[in-house]
Amino acid sequence: MIVTIIGIGLIGGSMALCLREKGLAARVVGVEANAAHAAKALELGIVDEILPLEEAIEISDTVIVSVPVTTATKVVMTVLDKVKNQVVLDVGSTKADLCREADLHPNRGRFVATHPMWGTEFSGPEAATIHAFAGKALVICDQQKSDPDALEMVENMYRSLGMHLLNMDSGMHDIHTAYISHISHITSFALANTVLEKEREEDAIFELASGGFESTVRLAKSNADTWVPVFMQNKENVLDVLNEHITQLRKFKASLEKENWDYLRELIEHANKIKRILK
Amino acid sequence: MIVTIIGIGLIGGSMALCLREKGLAARVVGVEANAAHAAKALELGIVDEILPLEEAIEISDTVIVSVPVTTATKVVMTVLDKVKNQVVLDVGSTKADLCREADLHPNRGRFVATHPMWGTEFSGPEAATIHAFAGKALVICDQQKSDPDALEMVENMYRSLGMHLLNMDSGMHDIHTAYISHISHITSFALANTVLEKEREEDAIFELASGGFESTVRLAKSNADTWVPVFMQNKENVLDVLNEHITQLRKFKASLEKENWDYLRELIEHANKIKRILK
Repeated sequence: MIVTIIGIGLIGGSMALCLREKGLAARVVGVEANAAHAAKALELGIVDEILPLEEAIEISDTVIVSVPVTTATKVVMTVLDKVKNQVVLDVGSTKADLCREADLHPNRGRFVATHPMWGTEFSGPEAATIHAFAGKALVICDQQKSDPDALEMVENMYRSLGMHLLNMDSGMHDIHTAYISHISHITSFALANTVLEKEREEDAIFELASGGFESTVRLAKSNADTWVPVFMQNKENVLDVLNEHITQLRKFKASLEKENWDYLRELIEHANKIKRILK
Repeated sequence: MIVTIIGIGLIGGSMALCLREKGLAARVVGVEANAAHAAKALELGIVDEILPLEEAIEISDTVIVSVPVTTATKVVMTVLDKVKNQVVLDVGSTKADLCREADLHPNRGRFVATHPMWGTEFSGPEAATIHAFAGKALVICDQQKSDPDALEMVENMYRSLGMHLLNMDSGMHDIHTAYISHISHITSFALANTVLEKEREEDAIFELASGGFESTVRLAKSNADTWVPVFMQNKENVLDVLNEHITQLRKFKASLEKENWDYLRELIEHANKIKRILK
């Protein structure tokens, strides 16, 4: 099939590489507003050509929208305006607003809302990798709104990439991802800012940084262009979990201030229960 | 040489395995108060034998103290009471209190205060691994207080394990590790408690958990027996950095509440500066 990918960054670029590697895309067309990214995607062989949106849609069987989530709604609506029997999917980290809008479109059935639960802290076409997606979860939201043939095509595509599929209501998706993904990014950004604020000796950070620090602060390298839109779209859920997180940190603070070591132990042992869930 | 290791957990056990693997320890003697750990360490071949403290010290060239940091001071002092020309070192995560006490001991010169900047979220002898230490930093504190021969022996030992050596004042060590290591554990424990509090659907956590979540919450599996003592010993420094961290999180909260997306972008781009330090 011929696949158009709108937005050739980390996720869009990795989709291009993986679809080609699995023999699912005979030809990959890129649509990319950023000229430097477009040139880089061509140079790296991620896409076969860069075309304007309309031309790209016309010749494609499948259109994948992989742009920041605040732009995704508008782009998906524009693409749906132009499709006949093509399948359109997005790969963004928030879903409620997008699906609410898409539900109003006469071509809603051609659209499948998906979220591959994979990413890294890097961005742009240089960050794209064929080592993406396999073994990770793929969430399809409000699947009953998609035409059966479109849904089946998308499900088969992701299964071929080695992902395990989950169905979820788009509103529930945004609640769960606030807990599972979005808050991790905020804590990591805030931790980086904490260390940069307090630790003026950068050499000491560099030399002492152990695996534990690197793993908790890794996400702080993530791109503002991707994440500001995610937090904008998922503001209420993220604030809810952020308030809870500050409350939890205050419990640690209180246990230290009061030298209540039994309480500190309780807090840690409660946290250890995450082992039940994540081996 | 014959090495005694007091406390055969993650760090002590890994030291035993690595020293033997590099041909540095002809015989490893364990001293272990926990009978189950002692049996496990023998069963796994981590130690050649388990002996009472006094007997172990008597036949050893080197004594490594690898017990929780609140116990370490007392154990180091007891060992220093009994040594003649043996070298004594500890491998704990806090140093100021221990070094202050050790400075009062007539055998202070035989003691070298060290902190290998390596660990995992697992504990006990089962967690010990030969894949420890190499490529990581080793901090030696207040090295001028150690006898030159003891210092040289310890430096050579850690170099043979593939570590790069740093010298640091014991007080500065505790300040730096609060930023680089201890706060990461608190944020991770608090994040686990946040998710466990808010996300009642454990299946959703399990199924959706992506690499980002796993890496920020990994340290939440860490052992209370190790970490309560670290926080007890380094209370003031940890509180200082924890207060700053809560302040930083409040900035994210404020930017979301006020929908000040420019400010949110600034916060994220400031956090991105951690890239300069951690590649």
